[in-house]
Amino acid sequence: MAPSKTNEVVQRGWIIPIGGAEDKLQRRRILSRFVSLSGGSEARIVIIPTASRLTTTGDRYLRLFTELGAKDVQVADILTRDDAEREDYLQMIENATGVFLTGGNQLRITTIIGGTSAAKAIRRGNAKGLNVAGTSAGASVLSDHMIAFGKDGSSPRAGAVRLAPGLGLTNRFIIDQHFRQRDRLGRLISALAFNPHPTGIGLDEDTAAFIGPDNTLEVEGSGALTLVDSSKTQFSSMAEVGVSDPICVLGITVHILAKGATYNLHTRTASPGTLDVERTLE
Amino acid sequence: MAPSKTNEVVQRGWIIPIGGAEDKLQRRRILSRFVSLSGGSEARIVIIPTASRLTTTGDRYLRLFTELGAKDVQVADILTRDDAEREDYLQMIENATGVFLTGGNQLRITTIIGGTSAAKAIRRGNAKGLNVAGTSAGASVLSDHMIAFGKDGSSPRAGAVRLAPGLGLTNRFIIDQHFRQRDRLGRLISALAFNPHPTGIGLDEDTAAFIGPDNTLEVEGSGALTLVDSSKTQFSSMAEVGVSDPICVLGITVHILAKGATYNLHTRTASPGTLDVERTLE
Repeated sequence: MAPSKTNEVVQRGWIIPIGGAEDKLQRRRILSRFVSLSGGSEARIVIIPTASRLTTTGDRYLRLFTELGAKDVQVADILTRDDAEREDYLQMIENATGVFLTGGNQLRITTIIGGTSAAKAIRRGNAKGLNVAGTSAGASVLSDHMIAFGKDGSSPRAGAVRLAPGLGLTNRFIIDQHFRQRDRLGRLISALAFNPHPTGIGLDEDTAAFIGPDNTLEVEGSGALTLVDSSKTQFSSMAEVGVSDPICVLGITVHILAKGATYNLHTRTASPGTLDVERTLE
Repeated sequence: MAPSKTNEVVQRGWIIPIGGAEDKLQRRRILSRFVSLSGGSEARIVIIPTASRLTTTGDRYLRLFTELGAKDVQVADILTRDDAEREDYLQMIENATGVFLTGGNQLRITTIIGGTSAAKAIRRGNAKGLNVAGTSAGASVLSDHMIAFGKDGSSPRAGAVRLAPGLGLTNRFIIDQHFRQRDRLGRLISALAFNPHPTGIGLDEDTAAFIGPDNTLEVEGSGALTLVDSSKTQFSSMAEVGVSDPICVLGITVHILAKGATYNLHTRTASPGTLDVERTLE
């Protein structure tokens, strides 16, 4: 008997922002978890290296995901807006279980893919269960409001950050990456001071947020995730200050989350998760 | 017999961005059309003057909408984030048929209302049929991606514009206002050059876009609506240039729409509408 259609529940796929410089040589926890979530030996992965100017980026990830046991790994080498309409690439995305956006410059992704059929295919695919991961620039671009560029190491200032529309898989958060390595708390808080609606997710290198269909994220990797919850903000002076002035923001909640810790983006509750004993003993 | 619940179709309310300085003394076409759409003599209008620093702004619109025949007009004087949680103001919004956001500074709206219960009430209300109009700053803030500030009279440059999250009634467009008066085409194109996904709507003073539940907009008022459709953009250099460099964007479609002209934001088709003979003869 054919299974009843009415029993099928369509779940959103995972959204997996990675803070850049993820381990590619040792345990490769983040990349292998992405492969495993996408079907393991049945995974069909499509790599989109648009952010990068290096021609070798796509092939490097192709070898990595193949080594990690994915069944079928392909590169959709989208370099122009015309490429982002190519039927063969759209088919690849349509048939994939996981899409991986490489690092580089997030504005290459939005200027080349934004508003094209490839962007629609990724967004619709994710809504129907396709996992979408991205590292560094590829992480920034996943959300609706994206940090295009900004000042590292700055105090929160009106001019510390410049936002642009991302690929828009979700409007719940704004991502920043290379977070501790480049001292980016100031610019992430600046981004949230414009409008405290989204949650800020600052990802260290080799650190990822695995965000499930239930909007609970779990931290994976060797660094920290700095979660900035501005939903209880009492005041932001962003409307009153000049571009180079420091801003005043009151009532931000910050959680520093390590491997295994979780955060529910809907209820805004954090949990340390189960202690990672294996790693503690290393 | 009680009407069947299943026959009720819930339609989104109108979204009505106005380019600022709308006629308040003569024919008042824009404001009276807003009242009329919101129920005319049955209209329940809530004015939110948060963008303005002038204490008289709310009362001025209260008198105007009362003169135009609305049944019930109230001011929700939200000046702090705590005000944006006040139960009496939330009830006002819940019971309204139309909400009107005044001009001033759009960052006052997003920093004070963004992420609060009032923002949710407006967004949910609009999804269920509440009309939401805004003038100048109040127009900018209606969409998901908002121009926070920028350079007037500039060529399109990477640094000409700064985006921030708005109230997010729709992600289909980005608004700019006082458009011809302040020469803002450069900054609107700069905004779209980050990601060509949204449609750009540049509104002259005393000019409004009445955007219906079917995502067709109709122009009202004495000026022009400059519609920038970047969906066919072939190339944007935004990823390659410095903040003060001019940018290169290829393949933008522009429509200049006057009173009565329409544009379907879904199919991206423009129509001149019916000639406004009355006005031609003035």
